[in-house]
Amino acid sequence: MKEVNIALLGFGTVGTGVYELLIKNSDLIKEKIGIKPIIKKILVKDLKKKREIEVDKNLLTTNVEEILKDPEISIVCELMGGIEPAKEYVLKALKEGKEVVTANKAILAQHGDEIWEEARKRKRFLGFEASVGGGIPIIKTLKEALIGNNIKSIIGIINGTTNYILTKMLENNLSFKDALKAAQAKGYAEADPTLDIKGIDSAHKISILASLAFGFYIPVSKVYIEGIDQIDLMDLKFAKDFGYVVKLLAFALKRKGKIEVRVHPTLIPENHVLTSVRLNYNALYITGDFVGDILLYGLGAGKEPTASAVVSDIIDAIEYSYFGKKPFIKYPLTKNNNFFNIRPIEEVEFKYYFRFSAIDKPGVLSKISGILGKNNISIASVVQIGRQKKKGSVPVVMLTHETKEKNVIKALQEIDKLDVVTAPTKKFRIL
Amino acid sequence: MKEVNIALLGFGTVGTGVYELLIKNSDLIKEKIGIKPIIKKILVKDLKKKREIEVDKNLLTTNVEEILKDPEISIVCELMGGIEPAKEYVLKALKEGKEVVTANKAILAQHGDEIWEEARKRKRFLGFEASVGGGIPIIKTLKEALIGNNIKSIIGIINGTTNYILTKMLENNLSFKDALKAAQAKGYAEADPTLDIKGIDSAHKISILASLAFGFYIPVSKVYIEGIDQIDLMDLKFAKDFGYVVKLLAFALKRKGKIEVRVHPTLIPENHVLTSVRLNYNALYITGDFVGDILLYGLGAGKEPTASAVVSDIIDAIEYSYFGKKPFIKYPLTKNNNFFNIRPIEEVEFKYYFRFSAIDKPGVLSKISGILGKNNISIASVVQIGRQKKKGSVPVVMLTHETKEKNVIKALQEIDKLDVVTAPTKKFRIL
Repeated sequence: MKEVNIALLGFGTVGTGVYELLIKNSDLIKEKIGIKPIIKKILVKDLKKKREIEVDKNLLTTNVEEILKDPEISIVCELMGGIEPAKEYVLKALKEGKEVVTANKAILAQHGDEIWEEARKRKRFLGFEASVGGGIPIIKTLKEALIGNNIKSIIGIINGTTNYILTKMLENNLSFKDALKAAQAKGYAEADPTLDIKGIDSAHKISILASLAFGFYIPVSKVYIEGIDQIDLMDLKFAKDFGYVVKLLAFALKRKGKIEVRVHPTLIPENHVLTSVRLNYNALYITGDFVGDILLYGLGAGKEPTASAVVSDIIDAIEYSYFGKKPFIKYPLTKNNNFFNIRPIEEVEFKYYFRFSAIDKPGVLSKISGILGKNNISIASVVQIGRQKKKGSVPVVMLTHETKEKNVIKALQEIDKLDVVTAPTKKFRIL
Repeated sequence: MKEVNIALLGFGTVGTGVYELLIKNSDLIKEKIGIKPIIKKILVKDLKKKREIEVDKNLLTTNVEEILKDPEISIVCELMGGIEPAKEYVLKALKEGKEVVTANKAILAQHGDEIWEEARKRKRFLGFEASVGGGIPIIKTLKEALIGNNIKSIIGIINGTTNYILTKMLENNLSFKDALKAAQAKGYAEADPTLDIKGIDSAHKISILASLAFGFYIPVSKVYIEGIDQIDLMDLKFAKDFGYVVKLLAFALKRKGKIEVRVHPTLIPENHVLTSVRLNYNALYITGDFVGDILLYGLGAGKEPTASAVVSDIIDAIEYSYFGKKPFIKYPLTKNNNFFNIRPIEEVEFKYYFRFSAIDKPGVLSKISGILGKNNISIASVVQIGRQKKKGSVPVVMLTHETKEKNVIKALQEIDKLDVVTAPTKKFRIL
């Protein structure tokens, strides 16, 4: 049986998962493709480190050149994470004529132009299924299954940590802080959760999906980002009373000739299928002009699901390597594109949820709604939640009709300066 | 730009959709693959029939040989439906060295061994994405994205008609008959709805998915089938009271070394993500040993979604044709397989929902539960719904612990013979 040699760069959680999968399901894969994938080298930082699994010491190396310069290795899997040296190794591997598989969203979201261009120039396969959505086959679906479609929109819950926190807050009546601790205890959040809770991880991922969907490279720097660290349990509950569930959503969509790429907490109507995505699950809701609406749902992180995605790329890479074929489906189509513009958030129209903190006395609501009206914001419904028990402020929750973000920014600046308003107004966009 | 010639066999709803997609999104596809797909011939029954869309008369032919014998046509798409002559044409096209795309679940579920064997022998691509789940990329996901996984189970809502009927019954308080009429009015059910409501359409589809997942051909004749035509609105409501939603599910799963392939109405716990699949939507819930649980959701039928799936296959077929490459991933692995057995339904263990129609007098429940106990069926909960208002029977609803189907068959035969039981007991399996 023909064999193909693979090297892993990095042997942490994902690398271990890929190694385990290729051993455990080796017969299955051989039967399906008639070729035996062999891990020939694994790049590690420390040869002596005690590892979770036993592995032949001869496979390990600390010298990346042993891999890049080995003509017998056809496929290089970058599973190290971080920007450097991961990016350097990916580019070098492509230059050396290797097919490359990477699970690294950061290098694509920040340097995708350079990496995709190199793969294109060298006519090499570049797999990155594991960079978004863990085991969910979103990259293959966008690139291949929906190839005949004009993609209108992708709406994603693509960060398990924040989805777990928001689910736990509402379902278990927890503060943001306590829900974050629960996520950390489960291993779903890191000790420093900044990248997740600030929405940056989601932004990396939607940058990649937007680039695929719209055909030109959209780096993470072009993504509008808001996280969930400012969310109060109170708002999740008020939203629920109005028939909405709050999720951190990532959007990539095309409207009236412009593109919007953004990440922010969003109120979703209760009957929308995305509200059934609970805990650490991820989901992608895609609308295409022919396929209509489809949803892909699954575990967006973790050793095994990510290994499943990496191995799917490895098999595709083997096929490329075996047939010596050139990349067939092009992505992103162009390095840069001047025809489309990305619409700034200020120009996007939303319905909004506002929570004002206002002194409970006559005339306050009239002041607030006066300012809203002046700024072209029309109120859909308003609820003052309970009368105050002691002197102080009460929450006033309001839903609006559609209006431009810039109107809202202006109105809230004015409202938050009112004497009768005791804290900055909370604002969430509605799907 | 290089061109590839395609022929369509059949020009009904799906054929028209494929034609429209390839025209409307022609530039998009050319940009992505660098090749122009051209429809060179369309096989129709009647050249003079008035058609929904305008099409160059020179494309139409009633003579299939004009297509099969044309060396310039590389790809043949069978979109006729039915067994013959569709099967004959597919086999002939493969013999003539064409890559073949088909949307025909029936020929694969009934003659898949012969068709897959021919494709294998001739080393040709055989695409059938559109045969299951419309625009949902379930075939590509099973074949390629999950290639590294041992598939443990596939649970599908793969018939939009029955899902629409069950949703409407519960949500709009309709009888089966009225909900069926509503489905027919919407165009979701045919004038003769037998194939859908009897579960046969779902059985065809799960036969194909099971063959892919377990690696050997499992024809529809091996699928246990129960439809939804015996479901009362009453049972949907009782199930809901117990915290369940009733759906027609198709199962392909591997347990304790044996395979189960079956279609039947099933009670799903309310918090399961499959319960959010409403109306005419389809969904596939797949569990693999590495990927964990994933769900694919979307429109399982209709002109545009099906065209999206066919075109995805066409592009794959173009790649095969362009590179002259041989099929790489093998499916099903073997024509027949003696290592696995299909477990007969009698040997499968389920939890059950029973609705007995019993005379409302003392001692009845004791008689029924006595027979159940004797047959190793243990009761989890029981509710007698209301007291009777006039002389007659009352529904007694019961949920059981796990037991083998054969125990249930035996017990219900005995129970239904009791004098105090006035109608055959309704039985549903619980997920």
